[in-house]
This record gives sequence, structure tokens and C-alpha cells, in this order.
Amino acid sequence: MSGLTIGVDLGGTNTLAGLVDEAGEVLGRSGCPTRLDLDSEGVIRGIVACVRGAAREGGTDLLEVASVGVGSPGPLDAFEGVIISPENLPCMRGVRLKDRLEDALGLPVVVDNDANLAAYGEQWLGAGRGVDHFLCVTLGTGVGGGWIANGRLMHGFNGNAAEVGHTTIDLNGPRCACGNYGCLEMYASATAMVRRARQRLAQDRPKTTLRAEGLTTRAMFEAAEADDVFARAMFEETGFFLGVGLVNMVSALNVEVVALCGGLARAGEWLFEPARRTFQERGAVGVKEYVRIVPGALGDDAGILGAARLARG
Amino acid sequence: MSGLTIGVDLGGTNTLAGLVDEAGEVLGRSGCPTRLDLDSEGVIRGIVACVRGAAREGGTDLLEVASVGVGSPGPLDAFEGVIISPENLPCMRGVRLKDRLEDALGLPVVVDNDANLAAYGEQWLGAGRGVDHFLCVTLGTGVGGGWIANGRLMHGFNGNAAEVGHTTIDLNGPRCACGNYGCLEMYASATAMVRRARQRLAQDRPKTTLRAEGLTTRAMFEAAEADDVFARAMFEETGFFLGVGLVNMVSALNVEVVALCGGLARAGEWLFEPARRTFQERGAVGVKEYVRIVPGALGDDAGILGAARLARG
Repeated sequence: MSGLTIGVDLGGTNTLAGLVDEAGEVLGRSGCPTRLDLDSEGVIRGIVACVRGAAREGGTDLLEVASVGVGSPGPLDAFEGVIISPENLPCMRGVRLKDRLEDALGLPVVVDNDANLAAYGEQWLGAGRGVDHFLCVTLGTGVGGGWIANGRLMHGFNGNAAEVGHTTIDLNGPRCACGNYGCLEMYASATAMVRRARQRLAQDRPKTTLRAEGLTTRAMFEAAEADDVFARAMFEETGFFLGVGLVNMVSALNVEVVALCGGLARAGEWLFEPARRTFQERGAVGVKEYVRIVPGALGDDAGILGAARLARG
Repeated sequence: MSGLTIGVDLGGTNTLAGLVDEAGEVLGRSGCPTRLDLDSEGVIRGIVACVRGAAREGGTDLLEVASVGVGSPGPLDAFEGVIISPENLPCMRGVRLKDRLEDALGLPVVVDNDANLAAYGEQWLGAGRGVDHFLCVTLGTGVGGGWIANGRLMHGFNGNAAEVGHTTIDLNGPRCACGNYGCLEMYASATAMVRRARQRLAQDRPKTTLRAEGLTTRAMFEAAEADDVFARAMFEETGFFLGVGLVNMVSALNVEVVALCGGLARAGEWLFEPARRTFQERGAVGVKEYVRIVPGALGDDAGILGAARLARG
């Protein structure tokens, strides 16, 4: 059996694949747009092409590859490899991705939640290396989480553990699309931060270079760097909410390291400083002194590496 | 090696011990008041007497016992068997309980958090039997938790996992003694329920048979059974808060069964019905349909049985 596996990161925009060796070196890469305009067959053809492309780029043949791991947006059934109802991949609803890829590739395939696999990658080679109790939180359109305990990727009874984004931080908060109220995702995702900033811009007319139209967290980061008081206050608030949510997650999971990944985490200290401060203000004595909140270290490779690691079994 | 172990439940009021066989049968029992008026030596002498008493009652000798497990109020260091700073056992602060009991008994001793061991007992022989992902929540003076994942008792990196009582349900809530704000314990413990009822009695002067002085959750249960509208509303509120907290715990841990134990859980449907209803209203689709919220099945034996099981290794 070769030590080569292929990790796939199936996203709403792009599909990425990497040929990965035992040490976690990415030997070959391939990517293509995820064809959501086609049906599931088109998406699967794209995955197959990326898998073949990554093997070819790495100078090998699919016959030399032991297995393939795929990270997909949830919800999904990781045990059966069935996609349930991802918002970003509507055409994949109900698709038996594992079975269909195994048929198309002639290789064993495992499928898991993309946030789980980013965590698994970061724990293998990135911010969680050597850490047995580790949580990786992805801050983007939503707030996702993946979690390792005793060195193992954790799923819970049906694959929905570490749903960080849908823990309540305010029982009187607004209703979330998930049906719950005051979910962390409503406060600490990039989407939530932009929405809140737009509301403030319209209501309070603060002194700022930012404009509501086309507002992004990247623009807010650049404004914060350029001494924009309003932009800094928005990061301060978001970091506070995030800190409250992380206290909850650490109280439940007792992880030693929390890595923050995804677009919003690139804002660095504007976000990390208030998140860490809030965590220290509210966290439990005897725990908070030991917990580190750090940036993810692998960027977009986390998902590919986690998927390749999962494929190793 | 014999199949006999002894489980000890060290409480703020009483110390209880049971001689337990491989099948979880309690063959002998012993108990004594926990002598908090003495120093740690007095408490330890009490534990030793109970351990010897349980063996004797079970018709055996300590020489026939393989090991002893002790559940103690936290916080404690379960890995080292050191008590840290339990509110209910001030004289035990910093005591190396494992080492001192091993010296006194000449047997291997393991120490863990009492809420963890109640969970471990319930998962062995009670409400969590056969359930691989299980949370046990103890509702008493505080709100404690113990948690099993993949069939294993979980500790996290330093033994403070499943701290259910100190997860925030309202980030703008009142400050808790732990330093956090809006902790579940401030809303769903027996203490919190009595405090809230007293405030309402003073402020709103509701029509009720209940009186603020000497108020207990047991009196509130009896009033609810006797059609007291105010008492029922108090359970309804407490069940709602509990349901919100359980949604958070299930979102983090993805457990399939939650058992509620402790004094307040004896209120039965007055508490369970609103807790379950809130859980179904707010929980995640794809998860909540499968989750059961049930009463603990072992009563006071849960801690002894969990400790005896832990001692089995």
C-alpha cells in the first residue's frame, strides 16, 4: 500500500485537490470551479477531474493512490458519506457522494464536514500540532467548528459535534436561519459583522471612510489599520462576541488550543485581542490560564490536508 | 485479581461507599457524615472508615478489593488526584487525596469529579446504558455535568470538560461567582429557581400557597402538583432556561441522550416538559429529532457505581 492519499476540498465556489504523502507534503495540486449550474453529476465530474489532475501533477497515477478524502459543506452524514442539505451546494442534496466517487474512481473514499477536516489538518500539521484537545473555528459566511479530543477527530453520535456557530450566546437574541435564537453565527461571522456595520452606518452616521455599499471585512480591516475608529470598534465588538462564544465552547469541550481560521481571522489582532481579552475576563479559573487562542497556520491547505489525513484512516 | 471495587461518593454532607462487583451489583454499603468541622485528616478518616465498612458489610476483606474510586466535588485534578478548591469542602483545599488514601488503605485509588462519576455510573447501568454519546446533568445547588463520548468518560485537557453550569445563555446576564456572566447555573439550578421565586413573591405578590421563608424546590413541586399556578410557572421558566442550555451542550457535544439528575430533576414533568419543548423549538434539525432528555435512573447510587467503575480501570 502506498503512502499517498488525495485530499479534496469541495467548496461552493471552487473544488481543490491535493496529492499528499505520509509526511503531509502536498506533491501535486489541481482545482476547478464547482459547477453549481450543472446537476450533481457535473459537480462529481469536477471532483474526479481534480483528483486525477492532482495525481498527474504529483507525477503519479491513481493506481498508486491508496484512498481519497473529501471535505464538503454540511450538513452531511459522515458515516455513510451522504450529503444532506448544504446551503452552498443545493444540487448536492441527498447525493451519496462516497458511493458515487468510489464508483467513478475505483478507490476507497471517505467524506466529512469541511470544518472537521480543516481542524484535522490544522491538528496534523498546523496550529494544533501535538495538541490532543483542539478546536478549530472557521469564521466566514457562517461560523463552523471542528474538534479533536484525545488526539481523535470527534463526531458525536451523528456527526454534528462542535457546531460552534449555532450555540446561543443570548437567549433573547434574534432568530437564526437554523431555528435557534441568538446563535454565535449571528454575531461573530463575517456576514454578521458586515450586517451590523451597515446598520450602524445607516443609523448612527459615524465618522468613517467605510461605505455600506459593497462593504467587506477586508475593507474594514484596511480601515482599522488606517486608524478608522468605527472599523476598530466593529472588530472590538465582534471579538467580544467571539470571546463569549469561545468561553462556552471551552467550558463544554475543555480544549487547550483554539485556532481561528477563515477570512475574518485574517484581521489578526483587531479581532484576536478583544477575543482573548474577553476570554480571560469570562473564562473559568484553572482553565483559561492554559488555553491559547491562535490563528490557523495552514490557510486554504487545511481542508486538503485534513481530507488527505482522514483518507489515511 | 478480584472483580470487586469500592466506589466512594464524597459529598459536602455525607460520605457514602459501596462494594461493587463486576456486574455493578452493590454487595455492601457504608456511610457517615462528612466531618467538615475537622481538618482534612478527619474527612480522610471518614472515607477510610466507610471503605472498610462497605467491604465488611459485603462480607469481604479489603485484601479482596482491587481498587477504590472516589468522586469528589470539583474543581480537582483528576489526573493527579488532588482536590483544588471545592466550595463545599473548604478543608480539603490542596489535599492530595489519591496519595493519602493509597497510604491509608494500601490499595490503588483513583479520584474524579462527582458529576463525571455520576455520568459514568448512569452510562454503565442507568439512563445512559448502551449509549456511546451521553451527557448527565446534575441539577442541585449548582449545575454540574459529566460526559461520555465514544463510550469513554471524557475529561478534556485538564479535567474540566462538560462544565454545563458555567456556559453562558445570556451574555448580558448577571455575574456568576465563577466570574462569567449569564451562566446556566444562575437560571437552572435549584438555588437559582428558589432565588427567582423569592424575588417574584416579594415583588409581584402572586396568588400562591408558597412562602418565601424556607422555600425549597420540593415545596414548589408539591405546590405545582396541587395546581398552584405560580409554582408551575416557576418550573416552566426553569425548564425553558434548561432547554436553552441543553441546546448549547448538544450543539457542542452531539450527545444522543441527556440525563437530568439531582434534586431538581425529581420534579419530573413539571421540569422535563418545558425543557424538552424548548429543546425541540431551538435545537438543530437533523439532531434534535434523535436526542432524548430523560431522568437519571440510579439516584444516589450513580456516584458510587461510577466511582466503582472508574476503579476497575
